[in-house]
Amino acid sequence: MSDQPFTHLDSAGQARMVDVTAKTPTVREATAAGFVRCSPVIIDALRSGSASKGDVLAVARIAGIQAAKRTAELLPLAHIIGVHGVTVDLEVTDDGVAVVSIVRTADRTGVEMEAMTAVAVAALAIVDMVKGMDKSVQIENVRLLAKSGGRSGDWHRPE
Amino acid sequence: MSDQPFTHLDSAGQARMVDVTAKTPTVREATAAGFVRCSPVIIDALRSGSASKGDVLAVARIAGIQAAKRTAELLPLAHIIGVHGVTVDLEVTDDGVAVVSIVRTADRTGVEMEAMTAVAVAALAIVDMVKGMDKSVQIENVRLLAKSGGRSGDWHRPE
Amino acid sequence: MSDQPFTHLDSAGQARMVDVTAKTPTVREATAAGFVRCSPVIIDALRSGSASKGDVLAVARIAGIQAAKRTAELLPLAHIIGVHGVTVDLEVTDDGVAVVSIVRTADRTGVEMEAMTAVAVAALAIVDMVKGMDKSVQIENVRLLAKSGGRSGDWHRPE
Amino acid sequence: MSDQPFTHLDSAGQARMVDVTAKTPTVREATAAGFVRCSPVIIDALRSGSASKGDVLAVARIAGIQAAKRTAELLPLAHIIGVHGVTVDLEVTDDGVAVVSIVRTADRTGVEMEAMTAVAVAALAIVDMVKGMDKSVQIENVRLLAKSGGRSGDWHRPE
Amino acid sequence: MSDQPFTHLDSAGQARMVDVTAKTPTVREATAAGFVRCSPVIIDALRSGSASKGDVLAVARIAGIQAAKRTAELLPLAHIIGVHGVTVDLEVTDDGVAVVSIVRTADRTGVEMEAMTAVAVAALAIVDMVKGMDKSVQIENVRLLAKSGGRSGDWHRPE
Amino acid sequence: MSDQPFTHLDSAGQARMVDVTAKTPTVREATAAGFVRCSPVIIDALRSGSASKGDVLAVARIAGIQAAKRTAELLPLAHIIGVHGVTVDLEVTDDGVAVVSIVRTADRTGVEMEAMTAVAVAALAIVDMVKGMDKSVQIENVRLLAKSGGRSGDWHRPE
Repeated sequence: MSDQPFTHLDSAGQARMVDVTAKTPTVREATAAGFVRCSPVIIDALRSGSASKGDVLAVARIAGIQAAKRTAELLPLAHIIGVHGVTVDLEVTDDGVAVVSIVRTADRTGVEMEAMTAVAVAALAIVDMVKGMDKSVQIENVRLLAKSGGRSGDWHRPE
Repeated sequence: MSDQPFTHLDSAGQARMVDVTAKTPTVREATAAGFVRCSPVIIDALRSGSASKGDVLAVARIAGIQAAKRTAELLPLAHIIGVHGVTVDLEVTDDGVAVVSIVRTADRTGVEMEAMTAVAVAALAIVDMVKGMDKSVQIENVRLLAKSGGRSGDWHRPE
Repeated sequence: MSDQPFTHLDSAGQARMVDVTAKTPTVREATAAGFVRCSPVIIDALRSGSASKGDVLAVARIAGIQAAKRTAELLPLAHIIGVHGVTVDLEVTDDGVAVVSIVRTADRTGVEMEAMTAVAVAALAIVDMVKGMDKSVQIENVRLLAKSGGRSGDWHRPE
Repeated sequence: MSDQPFTHLDSAGQARMVDVTAKTPTVREATAAGFVRCSPVIIDALRSGSASKGDVLAVARIAGIQAAKRTAELLPLAHIIGVHGVTVDLEVTDDGVAVVSIVRTADRTGVEMEAMTAVAVAALAIVDMVKGMDKSVQIENVRLLAKSGGRSGDWHRPE
Repeated sequence: MSDQPFTHLDSAGQARMVDVTAKTPTVREATAAGFVRCSPVIIDALRSGSASKGDVLAVARIAGIQAAKRTAELLPLAHIIGVHGVTVDLEVTDDGVAVVSIVRTADRTGVEMEAMTAVAVAALAIVDMVKGMDKSVQIENVRLLAKSGGRSGDWHRPE
Repeated sequence: MSDQPFTHLDSAGQARMVDVTAKTPTVREATAAGFVRCSPVIIDALRSGSASKGDVLAVARIAGIQAAKRTAELLPLAHIIGVHGVTVDLEVTDDGVAVVSIVRTADRTGVEMEAMTAVAVAALAIVDMVKGMDKSVQIENVRLLAKSGGRSGDWHRPE
């Protein structure tokens, strides 16, 4: 009916929250990933004994989990939905920290943005904690890896 | 006094909010940038007439400005400070949307994280609006470009 | 059983959040409207070329959509429910800006307050942006126009 | 330098948070008012014995005070500032409830929007509590009455 | 499968939000209680005429109701669920204020933490209002009294 | 001038946010404590190897730090102020977890409530994580230990 390519806009180009009252609550899952590129001094610190690296990864993990719950506050056109399961996994590699988040819901919309928001905010929390050592730390490749559930079905990122 | 490399942890590795009561309120500024890589179908839509692309960039701009104000809520160890000026600029290029944010304050801490948070959330808002066309959209290179003010003085990202 | 005329109070007059666990989730919709009366200098600016009026209406639209999602935070006795669709329409007239919001949900309570909150906050956002030109701008007639769904059925404002 | 009439937009019409780092923290005050027009059945209930009307006015008063603190969350371009004093007064009249709020700060920006937000949200809270009796309740004339402090000095609403 | 005693941690000890997508939405209720121990000067003030004690109990009641709605923001691993009914009852005794909260939902998880959060924050609000008279006021015995609904069934606190 | 014993109420007993614009920003500190009484099965789990107890204490510490920043949202009459330093220390004892929080600011009001809120919410987060093992866990003796700074000077809890 409309040539509007953006589902979040009406035919006049005005932002709206898309009506999802007719969608069925079903189990939906999304997986997102990202990377925080760090210099060797930071990697060394993150791989040091537990007294040193301490709560760093826990803080980032929790920041990511909480951010998934705040998605509807951060993204103006996102819906308020139940957030029914969140994991945020962090792995320290030779040149940074890899972040993966899986979000699940049994509600009316997909949780792709919840998973990407969890990754982005966990990454920001890492930056916040390591930037005192090196301000050039950088967040890379925040992206959706896969989603399942809902009318549009499964999707996996092409390799 | 401590071997703790992370300023946000105490010597036992426990997270804390660093005491900044002794720091002087001064004018501080930070500039951050990032990029949302998009496929051609999205770029075409973003470059189409105003009725089509409509509020897309405004929504992202506003999401970024508001996120700068929420930094202390998103990042567990960030301080509550005044946020006294924020711009978020978006430019549609041939392969994506470039995001730059400048945040200014006259308070006790730097606003590097506020600027990076504004960029990351503006980028997430773009993803939210364009993912209906192509789910492989990706956020890249969220990073600090420069900061000024405060005891540690000026910093520019090495080229 | 009680002479208490206010459903939000118990028989002793104490505020409570009314128990709606027994209500059935159904599709519900509410339409609210309001008006921001502006002086001619503001109307002229709002009708000027796109470079000048720029994001003004988009900012107000987004503020309204986001406020609908915050209703349970703003109104102490409101329930946390899903907000499943929101539009905020703004029309610049000869003496102000007319605001209309439609909110839809598939949940346990009506969304009358969500629609009125969207209107009130969109109107406040307009005031925020135009008050630099004329502080006497005024919000008028924020009211419910119609509601449908739920046990109490349809209602239209009498003319 | 610019023909841009809106201080919240840049010369390209893009929304921004105006930089106030150069402004001096001084004591500023704003007074706003509004009115909730109610039918006689509601007025009777609001004038009944304390067991009946109970917490109604307290809920609205508190909602207004809290909303003043949330202004920077509700209005996208508002600054995060200290909110250092808020009163919300409610008076039941023959045809409604009159709302007046005074907000004070010792910070960098005026608090006109904080006072108007307090009035609007206190009014919404009243609507929420009385709409069960009559849905045609309406919020009228939310407006600034006076402001003082800051570079632009005192202002009183013309009669 | 795991020796992990904490349901909120995975087998490596990492915090996660437990996946509840497979749980059935059913009516669940939780009752929590607590006590704010106050010195006689405060008790006298709380028992004085209505003009003096005024809104004190209403403020605490509303703070508790609102806190129940914020549980998922306050507790990092809590789920976003519907909060469908909340009462907070306060009773002034000879040596303090007794707080009881009942929270109900028709959703996927229990509301034990919502009820305990309502009690704790109502108690903090009382402390905030009376600490000007005596700083030694103290919150005691915030605890669950009973819960019903959900797979684990009914539970009452042993005497 | 008034017989009103509660500083947060006006002479008519109405809640207000006390005007602190005339107070001087100075360094202020508050220390609060509390205790989460746990059964032996929980203490054993909390004292087990790091893989088991994992993030439990980190989650509670972070919940407490973040809650200190939310005090003005949780307590209706609290002021928005800068929160410039927060620690939350947790110690597992033979019969529970002891919580101590120190909050510092260089602003216009004391931070007693911020410290008590940090303790109460850290305690609630512990309850949330251990209640799966024993629902009878209980929060005890949330109280102010000491404060310094501000016009009223130093205070230590009498032994």
